[in-house]
Amino acid sequence: MFIAHQHRVNGVLKDLDTVMESKGVDALLALGESTSNNPELLYLVGCSIPRGGIYVKRRGQEPILAVGETDLGSARSSRVRCVKSFGDLGYYTLLAKDAKSAYIELIAKLLAEAGVTGKIAIYGRHKANIILQVTSALQQRGLTVLQEAQPTLLEEVMMTKDESEVEAIRRVGEAACRVVEKIIEYLTACEHKGAKLLYRGEELTVGRVKRLLRTLLAEHNLKPVDEPIFAPAPGSHDPHYIGLDSEPIILGKPIVFDLFPQGREGYYFDLTRTFSIGTSDEEFKRVYEAVLEAQQTTIDNLRSGMLAKEAMIIACKALEKKGYDTPRTNPTLNRGFIHSLGHGVGLTVGERPYLSLYSQDVIIDRQVFTVEPGLYDVKWGGVRLEDVVVMEGGVARSLIDLEKRLVY
Amino acid sequence: MFIAHQHRVNGVLKDLDTVMESKGVDALLALGESTSNNPELLYLVGCSIPRGGIYVKRRGQEPILAVGETDLGSARSSRVRCVKSFGDLGYYTLLAKDAKSAYIELIAKLLAEAGVTGKIAIYGRHKANIILQVTSALQQRGLTVLQEAQPTLLEEVMMTKDESEVEAIRRVGEAACRVVEKIIEYLTACEHKGAKLLYRGEELTVGRVKRLLRTLLAEHNLKPVDEPIFAPAPGSHDPHYIGLDSEPIILGKPIVFDLFPQGREGYYFDLTRTFSIGTSDEEFKRVYEAVLEAQQTTIDNLRSGMLAKEAMIIACKALEKKGYDTPRTNPTLNRGFIHSLGHGVGLTVGERPYLSLYSQDVIIDRQVFTVEPGLYDVKWGGVRLEDVVVMEGGVARSLIDLEKRLVY
Repeated sequence: MFIAHQHRVNGVLKDLDTVMESKGVDALLALGESTSNNPELLYLVGCSIPRGGIYVKRRGQEPILAVGETDLGSARSSRVRCVKSFGDLGYYTLLAKDAKSAYIELIAKLLAEAGVTGKIAIYGRHKANIILQVTSALQQRGLTVLQEAQPTLLEEVMMTKDESEVEAIRRVGEAACRVVEKIIEYLTACEHKGAKLLYRGEELTVGRVKRLLRTLLAEHNLKPVDEPIFAPAPGSHDPHYIGLDSEPIILGKPIVFDLFPQGREGYYFDLTRTFSIGTSDEEFKRVYEAVLEAQQTTIDNLRSGMLAKEAMIIACKALEKKGYDTPRTNPTLNRGFIHSLGHGVGLTVGERPYLSLYSQDVIIDRQVFTVEPGLYDVKWGGVRLEDVVVMEGGVARSLIDLEKRLVY
Repeated sequence: MFIAHQHRVNGVLKDLDTVMESKGVDALLALGESTSNNPELLYLVGCSIPRGGIYVKRRGQEPILAVGETDLGSARSSRVRCVKSFGDLGYYTLLAKDAKSAYIELIAKLLAEAGVTGKIAIYGRHKANIILQVTSALQQRGLTVLQEAQPTLLEEVMMTKDESEVEAIRRVGEAACRVVEKIIEYLTACEHKGAKLLYRGEELTVGRVKRLLRTLLAEHNLKPVDEPIFAPAPGSHDPHYIGLDSEPIILGKPIVFDLFPQGREGYYFDLTRTFSIGTSDEEFKRVYEAVLEAQQTTIDNLRSGMLAKEAMIIACKALEKKGYDTPRTNPTLNRGFIHSLGHGVGLTVGERPYLSLYSQDVIIDRQVFTVEPGLYDVKWGGVRLEDVVVMEGGVARSLIDLEKRLVY
């Protein structure tokens, strides 16, 4: 019933001119002091530029990228062919004249050189006062600075991934799977003493596992931008409890293991497994089966053209059928399924489409997003299973193939 | 001659009300979808909040922090005592009514609850369209949104560090020193074959060293937000050349090793050593001595009250005396001292004070910044030495004590 034959794609980077045309946008400006944690600038330039830069694109023209002299090397390996240095644009003369206004003047000069007029949209992360100063300077020069509502033009384009982006995300996913396997290998190789796991005779703690995890991530060229979750029950009843370093690993207690690393090219992956070591109780088995089934049912029923919130409803219904609470029955609940089903993954680890009850997004081909139902209860902790899918030919395909197993 | 008895401090976080008063600012608003790479929000809340939040402070009042329900746990360990959840503020009702405007309405509601009126300054990194929408919504409600020039009120406060901040930066520095020592230990333990270093019989490459470096950083809980520089000559003539993975390590060829990791609490360190393995030629020795002397002379002559550009001039003069080019003699030069002397270090690795010829900053007590002269030439590569100092009692003290040695 959720099938719609609307395999629409918002457009990918190569379609930027068409999308700008359809939205009546004459030019794009993207700013930032860095491309790390600046997904919009990173997307437009296509490579890391340590101290960021100024990207300008007039509709129908090749973009221009201006960077400080020290970043010229990085900028030349970007996807922007026309690179200028701040020096070329007279930045040092502007600095000597008035250091306070030099950066704003530099941007205005670049826009003038590019012949930008009309309606301009601003992207990228910069200090709020810089965004406000730039906006005001552009308005004074007769440009109309757009106040886009969400999703912006660029969000729409970034929401659908071209093949090289899907491949980049998949590669991060593959590496993340190897890390998860290594951690499980390590846990299962530990000795037991009563209910405790021992590593070289010492009680195994979350802190020790996380230290190994950090090393493994580094070896696989993955950056843990925020700390991964390795959360034993019952603390795991809070879906974002990350686990305390001092916490021991106990046989039979479920652990929520959620990692969301960033690869070298800037793309993320997001992956959760829940498991226990040695044994498991009946309640945990029931919860685990319910979450697994909800995830599989949702993935099987994802169709391009459906509303993202319909996917959330499918997951909720599957869990409600088993007697669990969901946000459909009580939006302020503190047990059951207490978060949304998923979110897009790309140069961020939380972007459109949002798969929640409030989402206005539509599922379309070439989106990449998580499907991560979970159940939580202060009494027994949490269970969450999360994979990343890509929408292709109207249906969802998981980007990785990593075992889901209750007990190791 | 640079001594000034003006041990002024801009104020640290506890002085926020006084600074707001002196600048006529009635309220602060800080935003972001994350605290990572959002130094202003991180500074105000004092701990990592994975999905960020909304921080509001009215002058003379305790600040309020609003976060999504899933981040309540993180927010409760922040330095803000009054924490509200988005749900408390009616966010889900706003979402159900109009998802597009809900976030902006949420901010307006929080400001109204805090009783904010008058002049407000906005901080934090968020999408440019969000900043513009929030600004416009606040203006419509009668607030005056400040368009602060640089340095902003918050930049001035963040520029001077309190004791716990200096200590946090020093701890990151200590860990970074251990990493450098380990890398040098590894390099000196390698066998030689002709001019090449061998690791287990294979030619040692930059890629292999960087892999070990990533692992060591992870073990020391240090995040390499941007890739560290491990740049052998002659590529190192570009101060930001990071070294190619395939490049071999050659005996006697200087390597510029610059790492700028972020510690767990968000504070950075920045550290450069240049050295060669086994041997060194005469030219490299001369260049190394010139850079070392310029760095020491500059540190010895740093005084609170002097202009930051005066420190740059001291370093330039020391290098000019030895016959090298500097930005004083030719600002577009491509050899000699081709960058500025240093920059502040804190929750970013490039902030005020800027120690360049164009800087308008003043050196004052409790600033923490790099002192990093360097010399570069396409013919022989680069030499840079970098330490981080804190200004205390009018003079500079290096935060770490790591050997500087030409040949290992």
